[in-house]
Amino acid sequence: MKYQFSRKMQNVKASAIREIFKALADKEIISFAGGNPAADAFPVDEIIKASEELLEDNPISVLQYGLTEGDPFFLKKAAAFINRKGGIIKEGDQIITTTGSQQIMDLASKVLCNEGDVVVVEEPSFLGSLNSFKENGCQLRGVPYKDGEIDLAALELALSSQPKPKFMYLIPNFQNPMGTTMSLDTRKKVLALAKQYEVLILEDDPYGELRFEGEDIPSLKQLDEDGLVLYGASFSKIMAPGMRVACAIANHELIEKMVVAKQGADVHTNLWAQKVIARLLDSMDMDAHLEKLRKIYKEKCELMLNEMEKHFSDQVTYTSPEGGMFIWVHLPSHVDTDAFVKEALKRKVAVVPGAAFLTDDSQECHAFRMNFSTPSREDIIKGVKILGDMTQTF
Amino acid sequence: MKYQFSRKMQNVKASAIREIFKALADKEIISFAGGNPAADAFPVDEIIKASEELLEDNPISVLQYGLTEGDPFFLKKAAAFINRKGGIIKEGDQIITTTGSQQIMDLASKVLCNEGDVVVVEEPSFLGSLNSFKENGCQLRGVPYKDGEIDLAALELALSSQPKPKFMYLIPNFQNPMGTTMSLDTRKKVLALAKQYEVLILEDDPYGELRFEGEDIPSLKQLDEDGLVLYGASFSKIMAPGMRVACAIANHELIEKMVVAKQGADVHTNLWAQKVIARLLDSMDMDAHLEKLRKIYKEKCELMLNEMEKHFSDQVTYTSPEGGMFIWVHLPSHVDTDAFVKEALKRKVAVVPGAAFLTDDSQECHAFRMNFSTPSREDIIKGVKILGDMTQTF
Repeated sequence: MKYQFSRKMQNVKASAIREIFKALADKEIISFAGGNPAADAFPVDEIIKASEELLEDNPISVLQYGLTEGDPFFLKKAAAFINRKGGIIKEGDQIITTTGSQQIMDLASKVLCNEGDVVVVEEPSFLGSLNSFKENGCQLRGVPYKDGEIDLAALELALSSQPKPKFMYLIPNFQNPMGTTMSLDTRKKVLALAKQYEVLILEDDPYGELRFEGEDIPSLKQLDEDGLVLYGASFSKIMAPGMRVACAIANHELIEKMVVAKQGADVHTNLWAQKVIARLLDSMDMDAHLEKLRKIYKEKCELMLNEMEKHFSDQVTYTSPEGGMFIWVHLPSHVDTDAFVKEALKRKVAVVPGAAFLTDDSQECHAFRMNFSTPSREDIIKGVKILGDMTQTF
Repeated sequence: MKYQFSRKMQNVKASAIREIFKALADKEIISFAGGNPAADAFPVDEIIKASEELLEDNPISVLQYGLTEGDPFFLKKAAAFINRKGGIIKEGDQIITTTGSQQIMDLASKVLCNEGDVVVVEEPSFLGSLNSFKENGCQLRGVPYKDGEIDLAALELALSSQPKPKFMYLIPNFQNPMGTTMSLDTRKKVLALAKQYEVLILEDDPYGELRFEGEDIPSLKQLDEDGLVLYGASFSKIMAPGMRVACAIANHELIEKMVVAKQGADVHTNLWAQKVIARLLDSMDMDAHLEKLRKIYKEKCELMLNEMEKHFSDQVTYTSPEGGMFIWVHLPSHVDTDAFVKEALKRKVAVVPGAAFLTDDSQECHAFRMNFSTPSREDIIKGVKILGDMTQTF
């Protein structure tokens, strides 16, 4: 039998970074390539306790089919947590549990886009989301960065060009892969453009709770008064990603369609994970927990930046994140980034080449992404030295 | 903001059965409408024990990101279990964990179909799958039943008509909603047609382990020697549906594409659920467990059929399942099925009108589906009596 695959899957190439991730099986490799939360940041004891209590108290409620929109107690606790500073949940809004944030991208594309419809994305942006849009038949229209933020003139052009885009995908806090944060002023201008051109915003905020520097900036969702924003919050970074639990919040009209789409996608999200997280939100000192996480991430980020400062060539520039998990490194334009990344892998350090985060990964890109949340302190020191030495000779 | 939804979502109507499921909130209602496994069939103690051991032994492995194709130990145990009678897994085949069987429908449509492509389905067929295909932009081409099996002449016509279908969706064992089982002879003929017209088969087998009468019949996957079958097995019916774990098995070329699609859909399936099920498959006496389940289902099915025999009008006919969870009831053609179902709901008994399982639910259908796995013995006796009285007067 010769299989014939859909056009949309042909648009998703087996990416160069797969090779990198395969190489990570070599335990000697220091990986700055992943995006895993720090393992010591998981509330392990609390999860074990909540799980045991839950399964003793009412196992059938964990094991039987659940509601597509989510477990009611989880939805209540999650909504209260996400909205604890106010302004995220507006009148007429609704919340849905999703199987990780990734499913928000899948469901949003499904309910909003016909095959060939345009989605506007920051360039670079999170590879997983770009692939999700492509796999739902969307065409990507990239908007470049300028001075560390999305280029507003280019964004306006992208929003006003034909065919009209169905939505724009933004990660305002500690962007993946850039590590940068959108300023309040830019957020307001982006919202004004969204309103003017009537283009929905999918605001992906998986790292929002991981701010370890500076002051919180209101989310696009908080600033929005016109139902323009579909907001995604994840429990992967503040609880545990293996549980696969996130939430989307938007006007009920949009969420109700996503519920219908989710019914056809996976019926509902694993109940154990929803109910364990609900118990943690109900009983844990979340402020203390988040404070602990932020301290871990701050220390790792500062260590990595300090080591980079020590060892990297002056010709190399990089972002200085106020939160999240990533640093974006710009090499001088004479450096062949692919060759650099391959040589680094030979020397047992893995990073992700920047082109992987572009709408078309055959474009030239003189940057790579480094992750500071997963590696140990020792590996950060050792790995950055290796990369630093390379920047002096490449 | 005025939201504009995709064409494919407009094809999925808020269905009549939602109203029925809403009505089920009324605790006085006896529901024959659901499709929940019997709660006393869940291996509760074993799940609690496996979960506690797992979280004590290696919590980080449960909480950190996992592989998209599935947890390696789970895949190994699941493959061995599904293939324990031999012949399911062929040379060159691969296995993927999915977030319930429902995700198999979603991923298969995504990797195989462009918007507007045709999927051939039995008519009636499982509503959730039909919706999943529609939500991925597929057009459904229904093939009716004849003498309790799919009509082979109509199937051949459906496979040979233009546009050529991308795949056919079949539930050979204890079909939902019919409760009927495809004979060996028909299976062989279906495979021959698939080969002749080069149309893939998506074989959905969530109930295969729940045979309580008669002899096992080889699955289409076992009979296939040409890579024609994508086989789906679920742990929802034999472990617990709230865990959301199923597996698809097919040629690696197909599964690899599904892995790419799953990466964009939900990254991976909840690890706790995969690892708990792996431990059960590794340590439980699965034969004894399945024997227990089959006994529960057999007793409930026999009770329901006996009560129907006692109380239903002779003009009403119904299927006699050899396994699974459903009975399909044909009313005389003078009866208005919608009115019958509504009146039943007034009398506090819920069933699902047959039209819900058609490719177009505005078609006339003089049937309804009854579930025997969820209700208690008392409710079966009481509910069937109420329906029976109605069949005498309608």
